Amino acid sequence: MANANLDDPDIRRLFESKNLVYLSSLMKDGSPQVTPTWVDIEEGYILVNTPNGTLKQKNTSRDPRVALALTDQNNPYHMVTIRGVVIEQITGVRAEEHIDKLAKKYIDKDKYPRRSSGEERTILKIKPESIFQMK
Amino acid sequence: MANANLDDPDIRRLFESKNLVYLSSLMKDGSPQVTPTWVDIEEGYILVNTPNGTLKQKNTSRDPRVALALTDQNNPYHMVTIRGVVIEQITGVRAEEHIDKLAKKYIDKDKYPRRSSGEERTILKIKPESIFQMK
Repeated sequence: MANANLDDPDIRRLFESKNLVYLSSLMKDGSPQVTPTWVDIEEGYILVNTPNGTLKQKNTSRDPRVALALTDQNNPYHMVTIRGVVIEQITGVRAEEHIDKLAKKYIDKDKYPRRSSGEERTILKIKPESIFQMK
Repeated sequence: MANANLDDPDIRRLFESKNLVYLSSLMKDGSPQVTPTWVDIEEGYILVNTPNGTLKQKNTSRDPRVALALTDQNNPYHMVTIRGVVIEQITGVRAEEHIDKLAKKYIDKDKYPRRSSGEERTILKIKPESIFQMK
């Protein structure tokens, strides 16, 4: 296990493949919550996309501290665990375009097909503060 | 997404297959940490096995609140997320036998092959308090 960064080619590959990330945030009482979700990385940040009003969106509005882990679906013993903070929540057109980008990546659809009526999306922009890789 | 319990056949199957669980615990400063790990269930409890001294063992000694998520490796959109507490840390022979049981399940070895010299194991016995399933 070693300190690493998002430019590490093996870590990039983990994020660029169709692996889910398991994102933990903090409930109001300080207890943890974990949820699997789509992910990508952009310019050194980790981007997760959520409808407004989910636990992860509300939790990180209140306390931006998060952790996440992902493993290679073809080799579960190649894993990365990260701790960081949500430095920005991005809504509007950018978030709508971003969920389509993730739909393309994960399920090969040009448009995200599971929008609820009236749903608005939010990007959680995560700054990684510590990154550990094991392989 | 619905409240559920560990006796639900679909949830049992998720735990009985070779899916990793992503376990979140709390660092000393209250921030979350996530790590992928082997798991099984026994009599309504979720059992994780760790060497003594890992983050998850130390974190849950200090604050027993945890969360975890797992997905079906053959269908990542069947997922379970759970919040709960570590009600007991079990060491000694039971923990040593339990890691061998998990090695059998995950890598088909009778004895866990990656023991470090002098390593002692601990079972984290987790009582689930809320269980959500999406499929």
